[in-house]
Amino acid sequence: MPSHDSTHMSARTGPGSEAPDVLVPWPDLDRAHGSWPDGVRVHVWDGVEPVGLDAEQLARIGYWAMPYATPGAEKLLPQLPGLRAVQSLSAGVEKLRPLLPEGVALHNGRGLHDASAAEHALALTLAAQRDLPRWVRDQDGGRWDPHFTRSLADSRVAIVGYGSIGAALEQRLLACEADVVRVARRARPDSDVHAVSDLPELLPHVDIAVLVLPENPSTVGLFGAAELAALPDDALVVNIGRGRTLDPDALLAETRTGRLRAALDVTSPEPLPADHPLRALPGVLITPHVGGGSATFRPRAERLIVEQVRRWAGGDPLVNAVE
Amino acid sequence: MPSHDSTHMSARTGPGSEAPDVLVPWPDLDRAHGSWPDGVRVHVWDGVEPVGLDAEQLARIGYWAMPYATPGAEKLLPQLPGLRAVQSLSAGVEKLRPLLPEGVALHNGRGLHDASAAEHALALTLAAQRDLPRWVRDQDGGRWDPHFTRSLADSRVAIVGYGSIGAALEQRLLACEADVVRVARRARPDSDVHAVSDLPELLPHVDIAVLVLPENPSTVGLFGAAELAALPDDALVVNIGRGRTLDPDALLAETRTGRLRAALDVTSPEPLPADHPLRALPGVLITPHVGGGSATFRPRAERLIVEQVRRWAGGDPLVNAVE
Repeated sequence: MPSHDSTHMSARTGPGSEAPDVLVPWPDLDRAHGSWPDGVRVHVWDGVEPVGLDAEQLARIGYWAMPYATPGAEKLLPQLPGLRAVQSLSAGVEKLRPLLPEGVALHNGRGLHDASAAEHALALTLAAQRDLPRWVRDQDGGRWDPHFTRSLADSRVAIVGYGSIGAALEQRLLACEADVVRVARRARPDSDVHAVSDLPELLPHVDIAVLVLPENPSTVGLFGAAELAALPDDALVVNIGRGRTLDPDALLAETRTGRLRAALDVTSPEPLPADHPLRALPGVLITPHVGGGSATFRPRAERLIVEQVRRWAGGDPLVNAVE
Repeated sequence: MPSHDSTHMSARTGPGSEAPDVLVPWPDLDRAHGSWPDGVRVHVWDGVEPVGLDAEQLARIGYWAMPYATPGAEKLLPQLPGLRAVQSLSAGVEKLRPLLPEGVALHNGRGLHDASAAEHALALTLAAQRDLPRWVRDQDGGRWDPHFTRSLADSRVAIVGYGSIGAALEQRLLACEADVVRVARRARPDSDVHAVSDLPELLPHVDIAVLVLPENPSTVGLFGAAELAALPDDALVVNIGRGRTLDPDALLAETRTGRLRAALDVTSPEPLPADHPLRALPGVLITPHVGGGSATFRPRAERLIVEQVRRWAGGDPLVNAVE
């Protein structure tokens, strides 16, 4: 690994003399979002095809915006000796973080997924309330057998892990004539946010609980048997955050009896095995971790990368730093 | 049919001496919504069980709130010689109207379904954009195979038949970061409403068209081959109004090739036959006319009936009259 001028290192961002170049996941970002800054060479790698750069070119890469949701892309890390900043396009970077060499700053995709994730949470909630999985199966099975369904309107929804995605979801839920109960790690009485520790008192009065929790030591299993038991009969649990925040055994027990329903974009384990019993339960809807991956994400991600490259070229601090 | 005092007849509502009683579809409405007015006897019939009233009691029924979406209930009409007002809980009464004897006023369920229908239109739209039918089939098939999807956010949605349901849908779509184009029979420039005749110019620029049209001679086939052809490739057509307003042959032609997608709560014919080719198309989602039939409807319908019975007892004009 080349030595760095310590003055440059303390700035932590901006091109150093040895590694001013950047690697981005999509071509033609400059066409859509304005030209690249001078003095920075931009390379493109999608994370799937062989990387078309030699060792000398790779050594000049200082900022890398990694391909989104592309397992294996991280194997390029040891070939980037000049790397000083990594851009993830995910909001959650718990798996990537331990792989980074010391001195490499990490930046995440905070905010990029808000609209997409909130929209998917709403889609899951509406689908579960309005029995869409049943209608899909009836469509395939040649049936036309209407019945009254639940609704989202007039429901009370707890958003557990109220942050920027939660706020985007709240805006949608309120327009759907639902009530919202905000819950976060710590209470913020000024913002009408309850603490996670208040869940036992809050949950008996909600119809729907949406989990939007990141994964860290304090959130794994946070929503467990006690929280599920506190929900009223027929309540819906939606998980759009991370699978391990919702206790899988307790969830299976409560959905197997039909007492609770679930709509899950994330699972534990993930991917969910082909023969996992959750798949066969009529009150359970599963999507394969696609909350953040919609058309809404791409233009927002592209704009973030272009902005970061401009900051990189100008020696300005990058945004979305992960401490 | 008993003769009526013409003074009473001209008022058209309020109890006459011969038929002051009312027939409603659900028991215990007074418990949920306050006591019944004096002087009115309230009978209950769900439209399915045998009606437990003799001829004399039936002759005293002046106002009948019919059971919702209960085919065959209309067969009671000839047994109600004192009937002067019928309450439908549907917004569309095109099939009921010709069955009513002369002199019987018709009142519809305008507004009762706004939240439910708008919510179902949103559910269909989100499900189609976020590929929920595919995920349901993957859940059943043991697959975990994520891909990027379309989104609703950043889309432009035309609401064709902009009325009270359309306004309720618009509120939801705007919260989902979509743009809305309002279309109604006649242009209302002050309210930014375009005329149906402008559709050929509007449709090439929308991603999604939601039909919220009633059925009448001017709307049957209103959205036909020309309108579908004007939509861009991959556009989504949602129908939450009446099946016959969307030309079935043109729809099948455009969805069969995969050029357009569709999410339909109403069809033509309806019910859709078990072997109808629309059912097998991957870009088509079908629900069995359940837009109005959700939990949101019931309390609103109950409140309307109780309000109408109060007006009936007081001799005041009923609301939601159909001219």
